[in-house]
Amino acid sequence: MQGSAFVPGHITGFFEIFDDSDPVKAGSKGSGLVLDKGVYTTVKVKEGSGISILLNGEPCDCPVTKDAVDDILKITGTRFNVEVLHELEVPMKYGFGASGAGAFGATLATSRALDLNLTMNQCGAIAHRAEVLNRTGLGDVIAQSVGGLVIRTKPGAPGTGGTDKIFSDKHVLVFIVGDEMETKPILLDKTKREKINAIGGECLRKLLKDPTPENFLGLSKKFAVETGLMDEKLYSAVETLEKKDIIASMSMLGNCVFTLTDEPERVRKYLDYLYIIADIDYTGARILV
Amino acid sequence: MQGSAFVPGHITGFFEIFDDSDPVKAGSKGSGLVLDKGVYTTVKVKEGSGISILLNGEPCDCPVTKDAVDDILKITGTRFNVEVLHELEVPMKYGFGASGAGAFGATLATSRALDLNLTMNQCGAIAHRAEVLNRTGLGDVIAQSVGGLVIRTKPGAPGTGGTDKIFSDKHVLVFIVGDEMETKPILLDKTKREKINAIGGECLRKLLKDPTPENFLGLSKKFAVETGLMDEKLYSAVETLEKKDIIASMSMLGNCVFTLTDEPERVRKYLDYLYIIADIDYTGARILV
Repeated sequence: MQGSAFVPGHITGFFEIFDDSDPVKAGSKGSGLVLDKGVYTTVKVKEGSGISILLNGEPCDCPVTKDAVDDILKITGTRFNVEVLHELEVPMKYGFGASGAGAFGATLATSRALDLNLTMNQCGAIAHRAEVLNRTGLGDVIAQSVGGLVIRTKPGAPGTGGTDKIFSDKHVLVFIVGDEMETKPILLDKTKREKINAIGGECLRKLLKDPTPENFLGLSKKFAVETGLMDEKLYSAVETLEKKDIIASMSMLGNCVFTLTDEPERVRKYLDYLYIIADIDYTGARILV
Repeated sequence: MQGSAFVPGHITGFFEIFDDSDPVKAGSKGSGLVLDKGVYTTVKVKEGSGISILLNGEPCDCPVTKDAVDDILKITGTRFNVEVLHELEVPMKYGFGASGAGAFGATLATSRALDLNLTMNQCGAIAHRAEVLNRTGLGDVIAQSVGGLVIRTKPGAPGTGGTDKIFSDKHVLVFIVGDEMETKPILLDKTKREKINAIGGECLRKLLKDPTPENFLGLSKKFAVETGLMDEKLYSAVETLEKKDIIASMSMLGNCVFTLTDEPERVRKYLDYLYIIADIDYTGARILV
């Protein structure tokens, strides 16, 4: 028994944290870009027990994926041996929502493999819950469920939170500027959280008043600078692009610089970093054949 | 100044009506299929005043489109001459949500033509409002905004109502069995409304307990038969398919029979009616270049 799914990557531009004792209601508001590059997941199920996970062919603990698969197996009330194969088109720990994409894809693919017929929101809630409890993400899964330049207007999992979409046909260009970043310590730091929430809330109000791609980029930069999350190296990269009249910001939470452009092949030459060119994915998470 | 949009067709399987003095909150719950065939709309704006609409090249009153464009022009506070060109891949008055697709597409395309940067939900709310006030539809627009085999869990416009999605990779096959049908008289008939609401509510509860494509088809048939909306000719066509072990139902509100199948080219031969083969569209309404 086998199932496959694709879940797009998601770059958050800014966010505001909302706690709740119910992880399905907890999450964040904010805004971000859903990419047509993400995580492909295949799940193979047979008799037996245990969950093994391979990430680009290498064994991986992948606790968020493991928790999500554990949760979905509880629904069946039966033990199975589950093999999860993640193939990533985006890097881990660089603010692409890879952990959420992996867990969400594993849930969709397991539902298909076991003919559980779970809906989008049921799979999304399982993945969102695993993200919140592992403190690896707060808003990626709901954005990934709908696709687009997503505004998250109400926190929570798919089916609980609320979203809207801005239209843009520009390409997404992302530069890998610094090292890997862990989301968890930032989400647990009280001072950082207070700054994030004050500035994130302000950015959302301003985006809703003028919901354009350019305003999204500008507010993302404001957020990254004013929260102190953007370091010198990232700031310098963003400044280099600004001198060419290109508004750019930092992926949340990762050491990447991103922008929207009609000319990714021209703009990529302005910085000497590894880069990824993608389009906005307007479809969102999906089960493959 | 010009803009274009595609909005998919939507076949409702069953529904329950919810009234509200605010048309953005009014609408329906239920379930239906969003198709990769729908309505392409181009809007051309120039100085002057007046709205002219062409439907497949022919002048058309198209009141729902007209009301939606009127509403969007009010936002600008300026007069314009607007030409709306609708190209339909699905028939009008056969339960494909063509009026909603036209109004939604006109809103998206006008927003693009005038650089208004309206969001998906803002455009959707304008189109949904025009549908509700004209009594031409209650749930097509929100389904068209998300795509999929959509369950509408909360009535209202995009951004107000709630949705979930069932996954299916089967093809959609629709037979044009009877004559055109007007939605308005049915939505205004008190006895019909009471039946629709009692049976539609029951069908939704049963679908949420077992959200599979097959259950969707079976409940749609139950709804069409028990509400008395399915006439003899449609019933006979559905029976013919059932004898071949194919569950089929009637589009709401139109004289069409639809089913989901892996083999549309085989199944279409079982009935001697005009037919349309489509896939489920999982992306939803979108602005084109």
